[in-house]
Amino acid sequence: MANPVIFGEIPGIKEGQHFKGRKEMMENGFHRIWAAGIDGNRNEGVAAIVLNGGYIDDQDYGDEIIYTGVGGNSPSSKRQVDHQSWDITQNAGLKRSMTEGLPVRVIRGYKHKSPFSPTSGYVYAGLFRVTECWTEEGKDGYDICRMRLRYQGDNDHTHQEVGDIDAGKNSERNYRTSTTTSVVRDSHVARLVKAMHNYTCQVCGTTIKTAEGYKYAEGAHIRPISDPHKGADNLGNMLCLCPNHHVMLDLGIYSISDGYELLGEMTGKLNTISKHQIDPENLKYHRKSHGYDRT
Amino acid sequence: MANPVIFGEIPGIKEGQHFKGRKEMMENGFHRIWAAGIDGNRNEGVAAIVLNGGYIDDQDYGDEIIYTGVGGNSPSSKRQVDHQSWDITQNAGLKRSMTEGLPVRVIRGYKHKSPFSPTSGYVYAGLFRVTECWTEEGKDGYDICRMRLRYQGDNDHTHQEVGDIDAGKNSERNYRTSTTTSVVRDSHVARLVKAMHNYTCQVCGTTIKTAEGYKYAEGAHIRPISDPHKGADNLGNMLCLCPNHHVMLDLGIYSISDGYELLGEMTGKLNTISKHQIDPENLKYHRKSHGYDRT
Repeated sequence: MANPVIFGEIPGIKEGQHFKGRKEMMENGFHRIWAAGIDGNRNEGVAAIVLNGGYIDDQDYGDEIIYTGVGGNSPSSKRQVDHQSWDITQNAGLKRSMTEGLPVRVIRGYKHKSPFSPTSGYVYAGLFRVTECWTEEGKDGYDICRMRLRYQGDNDHTHQEVGDIDAGKNSERNYRTSTTTSVVRDSHVARLVKAMHNYTCQVCGTTIKTAEGYKYAEGAHIRPISDPHKGADNLGNMLCLCPNHHVMLDLGIYSISDGYELLGEMTGKLNTISKHQIDPENLKYHRKSHGYDRT
Repeated sequence: MANPVIFGEIPGIKEGQHFKGRKEMMENGFHRIWAAGIDGNRNEGVAAIVLNGGYIDDQDYGDEIIYTGVGGNSPSSKRQVDHQSWDITQNAGLKRSMTEGLPVRVIRGYKHKSPFSPTSGYVYAGLFRVTECWTEEGKDGYDICRMRLRYQGDNDHTHQEVGDIDAGKNSERNYRTSTTTSVVRDSHVARLVKAMHNYTCQVCGTTIKTAEGYKYAEGAHIRPISDPHKGADNLGNMLCLCPNHHVMLDLGIYSISDGYELLGEMTGKLNTISKHQIDPENLKYHRKSHGYDRT
């Protein structure tokens, strides 16, 4: 495949759009490789997946999908006949998408059994994020690669349990508990700032790396974007930080001078690069918010 | 005050319960000090607050409250006549409740103007968590101590903007973005495990401390509690970690042997204490989930 994987929204294709068949979707890079179901690879990450009834362990709750990786599957029976492995490039790519916070386009096909599936053809379900990867024993007794995908868009989806033969057992599932997840979901700007700094914390120089070499960092807003702060979600208001220094920034344990010196409980200087310009107004806002600039 | 501050739910008092007057609420430690509006202090944290129209900058959105600290306020006019400070014990206590993840009981009084307020007396609105503290200039031109409180219970509240004279301006507020907050909200068990380990990371020994000496750590589930993992929310399934080692545990960058050796990208041993017993089944589940136990 010479063409690179294309991440995020594709111009002209909206969430909810219907496609009659596979060919229509391949034209503009929306989903390039149909045979695999997963468009992506270990080096770039995965940009799109199709749910189309190929794996019996898949579960679809609308805004949350428990997805099964590729491999070990009999195309005729759809059953697992062998273990899956994270060494397979598509599975590794989904792990990369998780670690680096890349968006994944989800497409539901007519063979996928869920209330969210089309009766014919395919439907674009919107952007999701891989929030968790793990190995478990599937229904056929073989290890399978599993991923949790969470919807990232603004449309309401009924969070309904389907496609699971044990549905009755799970009526007590508590989604509120998922707020304790520690991996931070990022915006497009956050992905950009992390890539610019090569996932290295601008405060301590730490890079969190997986065994596969994938990197994790967080995009941290200097001036919070929530009300009443109304900070901008742009590069001038964002730092690339490790989780510890993200929490500490949010708690005001340190702040940053206009000359990028670390203030408060920290010493030293913020690591900066010329192509990433920070707006001094945001630094000033943070200092004021946390008592570093006294009037 | 000789009696200690009591955190969390009070037996016999349910969310939504109505109280005719202040005296009724003081009997069982539900809210001990009425004059202040804030029950708590810098050394223990704050366990309960009352919203009753005392501060013009307060904003109430139902499941989210932007609260104003105490001080600098004229009791007669309810206007700010001076700056507030985080040095005041109640304000410091709210910061402690944030850093250490303590639950705060919220009570709405009849003088508080919001659709969630009672027409007479007081209503217990449930448990909230302080998720953010900052200083800003209030409507009267003085610095005020501000806190964001988020509802932690299971009941639906209309997320509606009220009590803000600039309500029209804020129609574009985007709550989805609040998922990027880096401070993790914790369960009762998480608070317990953090206290047992004195907020010290069991992997690296780090303690994140504020200038006031308040500590931050995270309670991390070894076996995730979400479906399909269904891990228990108890001490045997919980570690006290810094945010970095929490993320790395969730990503499977390291795992832990039954003898508490760190596996994978880490070396060394988990710091354990005899009164905190970890269930080896949960360690096994984590190893299996992330490919450390090969079959």
